[in-house]
Amino acid sequence: MTTFLSESESAALVDDELALAAAREAFLATASGSTFPVVIGHSSLPQNRFTLKSGEAGDLVGVKIGSFWPGNTELPRHSSTIVLLDPATGRLSAVVEAAAANAYRTAAADALAVETLARADSRTLTVIGTGHQALHEVRAVSRVRPISQVYVVGRSPDAAREFAARVAAVTGLPVEPVDARTGVTAADVLVTATTAREPLFDASWVVPGTHISAMGADGPGKQELPVELYPGARLFCDLPDQSTAIGEFQHVSAMPIALGSVLAGDAPGRISRDDVTVFDSSGFALQDLTLAAALLRRRASLPGDAS
Amino acid sequence: MTTFLSESESAALVDDELALAAAREAFLATASGSTFPVVIGHSSLPQNRFTLKSGEAGDLVGVKIGSFWPGNTELPRHSSTIVLLDPATGRLSAVVEAAAANAYRTAAADALAVETLARADSRTLTVIGTGHQALHEVRAVSRVRPISQVYVVGRSPDAAREFAARVAAVTGLPVEPVDARTGVTAADVLVTATTAREPLFDASWVVPGTHISAMGADGPGKQELPVELYPGARLFCDLPDQSTAIGEFQHVSAMPIALGSVLAGDAPGRISRDDVTVFDSSGFALQDLTLAAALLRRRASLPGDAS
Repeated sequence: MTTFLSESESAALVDDELALAAAREAFLATASGSTFPVVIGHSSLPQNRFTLKSGEAGDLVGVKIGSFWPGNTELPRHSSTIVLLDPATGRLSAVVEAAAANAYRTAAADALAVETLARADSRTLTVIGTGHQALHEVRAVSRVRPISQVYVVGRSPDAAREFAARVAAVTGLPVEPVDARTGVTAADVLVTATTAREPLFDASWVVPGTHISAMGADGPGKQELPVELYPGARLFCDLPDQSTAIGEFQHVSAMPIALGSVLAGDAPGRISRDDVTVFDSSGFALQDLTLAAALLRRRASLPGDAS
Repeated sequence: MTTFLSESESAALVDDELALAAAREAFLATASGSTFPVVIGHSSLPQNRFTLKSGEAGDLVGVKIGSFWPGNTELPRHSSTIVLLDPATGRLSAVVEAAAANAYRTAAADALAVETLARADSRTLTVIGTGHQALHEVRAVSRVRPISQVYVVGRSPDAAREFAARVAAVTGLPVEPVDARTGVTAADVLVTATTAREPLFDASWVVPGTHISAMGADGPGKQELPVELYPGARLFCDLPDQSTAIGEFQHVSAMPIALGSVLAGDAPGRISRDDVTVFDSSGFALQDLTLAAALLRRRASLPGDAS
């Protein structure tokens, strides 16, 4: 009765379209669903950490166990296991391993924000950060806007060059490594995907009409954006309470607007062409639950798989 | 690579001996292992609740998802799923459904306390409570002491009579329903397994030398024992911080002794024949992790199971 989806199965099933639809479902559910306190634990080696993010919405209830084992060399350092309970009985319903799918999930949240908040004619995408997640961000965002030029900003010129080549190969877009000022000023859409603890750029470099999706800040002390940006910007996030506690907006006094409220038509998104819109993603359990459910539906729809 | 043990498999594998050994391992691990904050969540129907209890000890790291769906009629209202991570990689290692096994686990903790703290010649066992768990408690305790008489105390005389007949059938022991005063006064070992929110008996009824295991209190406001008992008693529990926060000892100012310290030889247990010893069980993740590991070891030791 319990369905089990292994890492290789979920990795084969996931794509940007599935992840974006699951993200939309999750953000719409933030108004009616619940998320519960996040637990941060570790193994007997304290550097090996896991988080428990649990929640409920509609007929979904469960928990995502995210793990970060920094010493992994053969396997990715991040893993993810989503456990769904049967809403009718409380019994175990499904277990979905989702390390690869988790990167799609996170990128889909930022792409959803871009789709909802960025100017429709956004053509230039700048990404700050050259890691695994940054590649997913470029791919997901370039699906929702007519991106024709990508700029890449990294601390190391070599890493930025290598990353630009990878992004070009995956997306088929022109990709150029540039300095932060050039990248920020040129961006219609700016995505930050780093582990920074101080601002990555100067607020004065941001031109009117830019949309910024920040996905790196997920804990106290983390910061990617300059606070000088905020007085002139419209601020959005996944969960306001969480974003102002551990997300990018821990550094701002104003309360951001939940993206789910914009999607539901309960709050305005971008009002004018010159608005600077900022979205902060700190991640929440409903994204994991809807992702797992979408993966399970997709597998159930495949013909003749007896596994 | 992930091992999955279904409810029917774990129910077939568990027994009192396995559960007692796993409990001993868990209590000994409390000194070196860690437990992380407990999450209490719910489904979209708030009466359907789940708890997340996570921890680590040695090569064990994981979480127990316990669920309580009070409206279940065909299935038990309590379910339990234990998820183990691979300590070397953080990846999912095993999923063990353990609703039936969970009752053995909880009874084993109380039996371990009886084995450690009760007089060796304890012959009379009184149980207050007539539910499913109470039956497990009698069975587990009667394995670790030469119990020759069981008394049963219940709020409803009919329920107590029925329960006494069930216990007699399962254990082969003489079982008699009695009033609380008779049962408490006669007890060498007294087990309380109720959902009470006020004391179940008068402290003056307890005779010197009695051991009491209280397993019902697991949340604020719950209480089974009279506070007048404490000044003259020696107090023990599973996790002192948890027991004084949400367990029976939320109603006492003294700090109880961890049973794990007694097992490890780091703290005295019963000192004299006339000591009244009290053990409070509020439950902790390491019990679930060691139980899951023991079930997995037992299955691995079975010949020729290709499932």
